[in-house]
Amino acid sequence: MLRSTPTGDRYELTSPTAMPKAGAFLWNQKMMIQVTCRGYATSQFMQPEPAKYAHAPTIEAKTFMQPEQNYYAHHPGRFVYIKDEESGKLFSAPYEPVRAPLDKFVFSVGKSDISWTVENIGIRVEMSFRLPVQDVAELWTIKVTNLSDRKRKISVYPYFPIGYMSWMNQEAEWNHRLCGIVASSKTPYQKAEDYPKMKHLKDKTYFLCETEPIAWEARQEAFEGEGRLDAPSALEQEQLGNSDARYETPTAVVQYRMELAPKAAEEYRFLFGPALDEAEIDHMKETYLNEKSFIDVSDDYERYIERGSGCLKIETPDKGLDNFVNNWLARQVYYHGDVNRLTTDPQTRNYFQDNMGMSYIKPEVTRKAILHALSQQEHTGSMPDGILLAEGAELKYINQIPHTDHCVWLPIALEIYLAETADYAILDEKVTTKNGDTYTVFERSSRAMDWLLSARDNRGLSYIAQGDWCDPMNMVGVRGIGVSGWLTVATAYALKVWANIAEQHSRPDVAARYRAGAKEVNAAANKHLWDGDWFARGITDDGVAFGIKKDVEGRIWLNPQTWSILGGAASKEQISRILPQIDEHLTTPYGVVMFAPPYSDMREDVGRVTQKYPGQGENGSVYNHAGAFYVWSLYTIGEADRAYKTLRQMIPGPSEEDYIQRGQLPVYIPNYYRGAWKKYPRTAGRSSQLFNTGTVSWVYRCFVEGLCGLKGEKDGLSVNPQLPSNWEGIKVTRLFRGASFEVDVQRRDVKGVEVVVDGKKLAGAKITGVQKGKTYKVQVSVPK
Amino acid sequence: MLRSTPTGDRYELTSPTAMPKAGAFLWNQKMMIQVTCRGYATSQFMQPEPAKYAHAPTIEAKTFMQPEQNYYAHHPGRFVYIKDEESGKLFSAPYEPVRAPLDKFVFSVGKSDISWTVENIGIRVEMSFRLPVQDVAELWTIKVTNLSDRKRKISVYPYFPIGYMSWMNQEAEWNHRLCGIVASSKTPYQKAEDYPKMKHLKDKTYFLCETEPIAWEARQEAFEGEGRLDAPSALEQEQLGNSDARYETPTAVVQYRMELAPKAAEEYRFLFGPALDEAEIDHMKETYLNEKSFIDVSDDYERYIERGSGCLKIETPDKGLDNFVNNWLARQVYYHGDVNRLTTDPQTRNYFQDNMGMSYIKPEVTRKAILHALSQQEHTGSMPDGILLAEGAELKYINQIPHTDHCVWLPIALEIYLAETADYAILDEKVTTKNGDTYTVFERSSRAMDWLLSARDNRGLSYIAQGDWCDPMNMVGVRGIGVSGWLTVATAYALKVWANIAEQHSRPDVAARYRAGAKEVNAAANKHLWDGDWFARGITDDGVAFGIKKDVEGRIWLNPQTWSILGGAASKEQISRILPQIDEHLTTPYGVVMFAPPYSDMREDVGRVTQKYPGQGENGSVYNHAGAFYVWSLYTIGEADRAYKTLRQMIPGPSEEDYIQRGQLPVYIPNYYRGAWKKYPRTAGRSSQLFNTGTVSWVYRCFVEGLCGLKGEKDGLSVNPQLPSNWEGIKVTRLFRGASFEVDVQRRDVKGVEVVVDGKKLAGAKITGVQKGKTYKVQVSVPK
Repeated sequence: MLRSTPTGDRYELTSPTAMPKAGAFLWNQKMMIQVTCRGYATSQFMQPEPAKYAHAPTIEAKTFMQPEQNYYAHHPGRFVYIKDEESGKLFSAPYEPVRAPLDKFVFSVGKSDISWTVENIGIRVEMSFRLPVQDVAELWTIKVTNLSDRKRKISVYPYFPIGYMSWMNQEAEWNHRLCGIVASSKTPYQKAEDYPKMKHLKDKTYFLCETEPIAWEARQEAFEGEGRLDAPSALEQEQLGNSDARYETPTAVVQYRMELAPKAAEEYRFLFGPALDEAEIDHMKETYLNEKSFIDVSDDYERYIERGSGCLKIETPDKGLDNFVNNWLARQVYYHGDVNRLTTDPQTRNYFQDNMGMSYIKPEVTRKAILHALSQQEHTGSMPDGILLAEGAELKYINQIPHTDHCVWLPIALEIYLAETADYAILDEKVTTKNGDTYTVFERSSRAMDWLLSARDNRGLSYIAQGDWCDPMNMVGVRGIGVSGWLTVATAYALKVWANIAEQHSRPDVAARYRAGAKEVNAAANKHLWDGDWFARGITDDGVAFGIKKDVEGRIWLNPQTWSILGGAASKEQISRILPQIDEHLTTPYGVVMFAPPYSDMREDVGRVTQKYPGQGENGSVYNHAGAFYVWSLYTIGEADRAYKTLRQMIPGPSEEDYIQRGQLPVYIPNYYRGAWKKYPRTAGRSSQLFNTGTVSWVYRCFVEGLCGLKGEKDGLSVNPQLPSNWEGIKVTRLFRGASFEVDVQRRDVKGVEVVVDGKKLAGAKITGVQKGKTYKVQVSVPK
Repeated sequence: MLRSTPTGDRYELTSPTAMPKAGAFLWNQKMMIQVTCRGYATSQFMQPEPAKYAHAPTIEAKTFMQPEQNYYAHHPGRFVYIKDEESGKLFSAPYEPVRAPLDKFVFSVGKSDISWTVENIGIRVEMSFRLPVQDVAELWTIKVTNLSDRKRKISVYPYFPIGYMSWMNQEAEWNHRLCGIVASSKTPYQKAEDYPKMKHLKDKTYFLCETEPIAWEARQEAFEGEGRLDAPSALEQEQLGNSDARYETPTAVVQYRMELAPKAAEEYRFLFGPALDEAEIDHMKETYLNEKSFIDVSDDYERYIERGSGCLKIETPDKGLDNFVNNWLARQVYYHGDVNRLTTDPQTRNYFQDNMGMSYIKPEVTRKAILHALSQQEHTGSMPDGILLAEGAELKYINQIPHTDHCVWLPIALEIYLAETADYAILDEKVTTKNGDTYTVFERSSRAMDWLLSARDNRGLSYIAQGDWCDPMNMVGVRGIGVSGWLTVATAYALKVWANIAEQHSRPDVAARYRAGAKEVNAAANKHLWDGDWFARGITDDGVAFGIKKDVEGRIWLNPQTWSILGGAASKEQISRILPQIDEHLTTPYGVVMFAPPYSDMREDVGRVTQKYPGQGENGSVYNHAGAFYVWSLYTIGEADRAYKTLRQMIPGPSEEDYIQRGQLPVYIPNYYRGAWKKYPRTAGRSSQLFNTGTVSWVYRCFVEGLCGLKGEKDGLSVNPQLPSNWEGIKVTRLFRGASFEVDVQRRDVKGVEVVVDGKKLAGAKITGVQKGKTYKVQVSVPK
């Protein structure tokens, strides 16, 4: 059902029904498209706010990308109907809308292309599409082959529904000059002052054909008739009706009729996308709609993706893991760092973390991002809730709600950036904000730490306001009193990280100051939040501690434990109490849940998190972001087995049952898998199918710096692999500061890690004096 | 295909495909439901803002009710599947989702009930529903009869899809105690301060069964499987799967399996609606889910509708017209006046006009509404853009945009209210606003007129700001300079109307003042807006007159002509030039378009109106509201033939071609029919299917005071019927100030109107000294 190339750079799903929502995504610098194996598609592009060019059949709300999207008959997608003109038989590729049982089905996902091969009634349909690197357009190839031994008369109908574009204006018609269907609309608005923005929106959707079809249909209703999508009335006719849509739901269907000799094939190319006006469509046609351009685009796009392939290749006993790490994980990290989730106002914590991952891929991007974020630091030292990226962008949705954790992510992002680059000069860069104040990055980071220290109550615990990293925990501190247990211990971690950087930057005075701060914060955490076997999640406005033993729901939370390990609040003894509790209460076959038991209904002193469906989203799901923090904390204390187990659970597979239960291909890590494993086993483990997540930067870090233990230091690359106990060895290629390290890790009879570089044993476990352009052969011995 | 009872109080459509979007609506004091003949339904209820309990399968935008709604496979509706357990054959009632060809189909629309009778494979399904007067719930009866001569084994599956409720939480399960499916959700929100409102929303949807089914299904996906809605996989099984929905799209399907003897029948009752919690569902079940309550509700609801049956019954040579006027028109007027289009902030002009119609039905409601509206008059004398009806309501959407016409509608509403009631005491009622100022209604109306006089430029023309009656004309005066030709002549009309009222109220000084004002305004209109054969629509911020001969699009507009006739700007000579131009440029087989030719693209100095699809909405459609004004103006100048012709065109029929082209039953007047008759004949005449419209108050007035000519005066009822020239006579029953007038109008050899009351010829054409409770026999002679 699911198979991969030997190197794992392509996954193929051979059933459209086993994992009906399984899909994949492509993106470029201005757009994103997610397709399911059955042919449904969700695409959006930036102008600069996200917009669509293929819509649902009803007016959709503008919202963030939805988890676990439901698909229904008229969901937008990209389809091809095939009609046998002799027998009248009909099927569709890839599977929807006809859902005919197929002789062969392959959904094939590469890193820079997605394609399908479908066979039925002796006809093969191959569909694939590509994206250009810069422009917003889908380049589709549809090839039809006669597999039978006789001449076949068939009609081929590519069907690209356009959907409900606008209540203000929508129409569509055949454009002879462009050789395609052009749908026009006006984005609805009511206030005259919105018009100047609206008039520049790409309100046209085009579907252009390289080869002129014999007939077309631009009106959805006329296409379907009484026949429904599985047997559209228009396909019962010899030819499509060539009818336009006038304030009716637009669609794009064209018809090719052909006689195919045995084994003969026909190939067609199409261009699908949004445009402002006909001139732009002209330009796009000129630029893209020909065989050569399709090949060029494909090459360009491969190179674009290749540039994001990261700094790590591994060869371990776990081939599924290798495939994922070597091909897909860096790609997902790159996506985040390259296009910032295609939003114009990423949450500050997301922006820092997405760019922290980018340190391993394109650190120059991270550098810019850190400086850009700091240019929006508030005069108090605090960081805003979102970072504005585009001119005229605004803080929207959740970014209008005060959260108190954003400063935490600054030193963490800096730490990883510095580890990869040793670019300590960034700390002396001066950054001026809109407020007019100018400080160096070093000063700004200290100011951010000061703000964290100041935003605490008289017990020394960190205020939560309307949320911390856990957005929907919006009631805990709504009156300005409640505190976050996690943020308290995370503050200590941030201070510690910053102190270490300051020390490296020859500022022991600053280091000492923030180490003292961390100690004080940790003492407060221990005094007020330690609950005997774990740390509490917080204390509400009314002084009620929660995430504690006496709670029936939301009793133990993962984050406070993770970060108390990271930040030093938890002593060794406390850690030895905490870990078994996590094993017992939070570990499931699909990963570690964020807290347990899930809330079954609103807890009004905690907030929105408790209203999500138990086991979904933030309410007790396997929320991978929290899982990734946890894994990192485990590597910091040498818990290699627990770390590997949890990491492995984040990736679907390797068993068929696991793929099916999660419903996802192993080509990205979703933001969550369903939790509530005991209460709702039917849905536990199900993937959200959302690939936007802060998880991946941390997971990448865990592989690079944890499992492989190849971590940058100011003066070199330290070596400390942490293999699971049943592994004898791994091979790693690590790119670092322009050099390449070919590392062979083996268990041997050694007491500690021993490193041999190009035949020379090192005194310590650190490779210094790294030379750009050089390839190092590294033998590493780790204790048996 | 379409047939009616002899009295026209019920229409029956016998094909589900001839007019696929044709439907009808029921409402009560808290909800509204519109159903199509094929079974799709759109319902909303007030809490106090509009909300839904049955949703699309995707997250819908919250928007005003859409015209010309498109239906698609998963659109919400109310359906019943019937499976023959012996043959496996499947069909559904009313028609969707299976779309099986039926042996019999009847969609039957009464004034207080809607029902279907569907027959196939020897089984009859009768579906009908009712609403209680006060509560939000649908009371469904489904009766299944074996028409064949043999015993039949069948399964019956009522299917009430619930759809995508919320991204925050949605689930559904069988509730044994309640004997039904209860779906739960949380309305999404992000800001903590929104929660106190959110927590009181009715976020549950229930589907309760009086008779316990043998199986059920609460999860849409499980119901459909790979089978689609025309052949759901779950129906291939012996029993539904009894599966719940956990953050999956909820649905409600239940199964009854039965053996029906020849001619035997089974009847089931169901309750469908929203609730806050289980206790409320309990209460609803208790209150409604039994045979007796269904009958009581039906009786109560009929009485409720009966109370809105209006003041006019007619018997004319046009039976279709009689049916519409006697049964449906007052009902639609009543709907508007009774529930204010189910919004909490009706536009002020809508509020005045909807209540002006209510003068003919329940004038005490109009009285309250006038006082309520005036309690929100601004200190400048101007009226706000919307009238807030509920506590905590806010001005939304279009009501946040400044329009300048709202004061116009005050004296008009007063005029009609006073004509019906002679309640001049209302003028001396004192009204205090939130600003703290206190004035009588008389003073407030004068202040509103003063405001209209003040809101003019130095030429004496009325500013348009971001729109007048034509909302989307939002660019004409966006800089505060542009003027409205319509509003200028309408201001003169409002002043004239108010002057007449003032005179009746013994304030000749005030009357003289506003008559002088009207004269001045009309002079300005003639000087600056008369274009030789008609009045211009306005002059933009840049000083460009539009709606004039040299325009290619938007050349002639109906409203400025209508209101120049009403307000006196147009002399007799001018009227004789205007009317032929309207005939030539604006008249179509489906009514008079609002302007012509329609705009084909944005005209940036006019605005949003020009962006609608040409011939749809405000862009050159048969916008019935403007048509109704026009008809009224025609009656004021004795143009009985033109008036009748235009009135008649507002009602679908009487030919089958006309019904089909419009796609609507003659049970209400929609806000528009498509225009662009010459450019787009395929879609011209198509109904918007939207029954919210200011049209109906004016149309009712046209019938009462125009065609029948039975108009209230301070001291009685004036009589001046205006029959189309080919009618010999009509009979009318007119209720007026508690008396009943049985009027027989005949053409006779008379010079003017002659009136005989109870055998006594009157000196003039006015019946004075009307006695409450009395029935008058009135013979009216009109000239041949």
